[in-house]
Amino acid sequence: MLKEPAIVLANHLFDTPNGKTAHGLVRGSGRFKVVAIVDPDVAGRDAGEVLDGRPAGIPVVADLDEAMVLEGPAPKWCIVGVATHGGRLLPELHTLILDAVDKGLGIVNGLHDTTADDAEVAAAARGRGVELIDLRRSKPRPALHFWEGDIYRVRAPRLAVLGTDCALGKRTTTRLIVEAMNRVGVRTEMIYTGQTGWMQGARYGIVLDSIVNDFVCGELEHAIVGCDRDVEPDLMVIEGQSSLRNPSGPCGAELLLSAAARGVVLQHAPGREFFEGYESMGLRIPSLESEIDLIRLYGAETIAVTLNSKGCPPDELDRFRAEYRTTLGIPVIAPLTEGAEALVPAIRAFVERERSAT
Amino acid sequence: MLKEPAIVLANHLFDTPNGKTAHGLVRGSGRFKVVAIVDPDVAGRDAGEVLDGRPAGIPVVADLDEAMVLEGPAPKWCIVGVATHGGRLLPELHTLILDAVDKGLGIVNGLHDTTADDAEVAAAARGRGVELIDLRRSKPRPALHFWEGDIYRVRAPRLAVLGTDCALGKRTTTRLIVEAMNRVGVRTEMIYTGQTGWMQGARYGIVLDSIVNDFVCGELEHAIVGCDRDVEPDLMVIEGQSSLRNPSGPCGAELLLSAAARGVVLQHAPGREFFEGYESMGLRIPSLESEIDLIRLYGAETIAVTLNSKGCPPDELDRFRAEYRTTLGIPVIAPLTEGAEALVPAIRAFVERERSAT
Repeated sequence: MLKEPAIVLANHLFDTPNGKTAHGLVRGSGRFKVVAIVDPDVAGRDAGEVLDGRPAGIPVVADLDEAMVLEGPAPKWCIVGVATHGGRLLPELHTLILDAVDKGLGIVNGLHDTTADDAEVAAAARGRGVELIDLRRSKPRPALHFWEGDIYRVRAPRLAVLGTDCALGKRTTTRLIVEAMNRVGVRTEMIYTGQTGWMQGARYGIVLDSIVNDFVCGELEHAIVGCDRDVEPDLMVIEGQSSLRNPSGPCGAELLLSAAARGVVLQHAPGREFFEGYESMGLRIPSLESEIDLIRLYGAETIAVTLNSKGCPPDELDRFRAEYRTTLGIPVIAPLTEGAEALVPAIRAFVERERSAT
Repeated sequence: MLKEPAIVLANHLFDTPNGKTAHGLVRGSGRFKVVAIVDPDVAGRDAGEVLDGRPAGIPVVADLDEAMVLEGPAPKWCIVGVATHGGRLLPELHTLILDAVDKGLGIVNGLHDTTADDAEVAAAARGRGVELIDLRRSKPRPALHFWEGDIYRVRAPRLAVLGTDCALGKRTTTRLIVEAMNRVGVRTEMIYTGQTGWMQGARYGIVLDSIVNDFVCGELEHAIVGCDRDVEPDLMVIEGQSSLRNPSGPCGAELLLSAAARGVVLQHAPGREFFEGYESMGLRIPSLESEIDLIRLYGAETIAVTLNSKGCPPDELDRFRAEYRTTLGIPVIAPLTEGAEALVPAIRAFVERERSAT
């Protein structure tokens, strides 16, 4: 797949958890070549520097005009790289999108509000002859699949990357695991479940939260069955969404039951006490141990814990890690700084177990 | 609410689990007065007799013509009373619906396929000036709510009726509990989560499986908040859908987390070994005990077990009941034959506990 040059809009949100789509694109995409991030708040710096403290070779610029005159390949796409409350296309974004269309860029949008349903944007896009890609637009009903149980005939074992909260790195961990396994010759495919996964170039998956509820499990099964048929991988790693007990929208049981993932890598942020966005309500994240018990009741084993170190000083993280390793007896790593190589033996063993079980 | 006379289509499916919408309407509706069930396979009998072995005063007739000439109030509506695979509007149903429109009846349809999107039916309805009500038609995005946490300010405690499988009587048990509690002066509202609940006259709720996934929890919260504000009941009983571990579409966590139901009545069919519709795959229903453990991990207590006796001889049912009572230490009843009166003390105690906890 030839990567197409793209600008990513992240205005005022790049250095916040709501810039997570932009973060994913900076960390890597097989679909787009990101030429610039637009965010006046951190303009002038390198995007990787802002994000992970390591240069990524992607400049942050103050506005679209600046992005259009950078050296290198001319951008073809403008990607909405932020999550807004309720997935709304806020006025400032709307103005930027119109400007991007005016500059001849196609729009890639993962918000709930679609650009195609916005009369002004739609008319401008027609006028300029550019494409609008709305990743959360629902498929028409006749194109949707119900769950049929075909998952039990899928050859490749499924590993789910779940988390104890949303926005703590499940997708990034999924990507790192997929890369690490492929490097050691285990042919591994990512099954994406959000729009950023698609943007990053994963070929099989769904945008889970934009599917009519009755079809979520069937569409997930359908994506996995298709991947198994087309690619015949040795392993699939399914990106989790939200968390099993997030009251704003629990998710994960679908991956364990309907996608029949028998292994779980559990992403956890020891420095985070409350569910993201619900700190003021005091909605406490349940313990790692009880999450593992819950996962077991769904028929899956947690084979590793991956830590997000945000809000957790290094010595405290080390203490957590040592404690979890002892009490749980499974690998515990911090993939963003260490990569996922250390998980290879445990995941290989999981693949072997699953193969010999079928 | 004045009940409107209706005919219910259940052709060839009335005496099967797929006739469950018709079953609910025979057992009771505050919205419609059912004047006849259409099903040639069991025509000539009383619908209650076929269903529960007790006459309901509702004749089963062979076709619509017969239904239109019965004594009593002239029917105004024709309700699609069956669930088809995938919620499709099958050819035979399509023909019957056209015939009903032609006879001047409005259509109430809970299938995924909408009648309004069927060009032929839509044109016929316009021509005859009758209404088409499609209960699973999705609301437009701007009308949908996200979960906000307002649930924690709702005064009335919530009790969820969950089950260990789908199609085993959750909705009927919900109705029986609501009626039993109201009879003893505990002002109780049903929160429906399927189209049949609405058909039966429940005022607050959602059609859960037809909502875009990201909005399911918010819409459920919104319905409950509205009920609390408008009616100020002493208790709400929320109808469950599917089951927590049904691989074809797990459901229930939303009720426990997003609707914050702290008490559960758990419906179980001891005579059923496999998930409905997946017998040939050998998908075994987990044990009652492990389901209760799972519910506990979601922060709720199971305060009673309600049994569906289908496929379970009376002496075996009695043995199950005695065993469950002993091991679980909570009431165990068979509501369809016994009513829900025996649950009143346990539910009253739950309401008291919840009140004193807030």
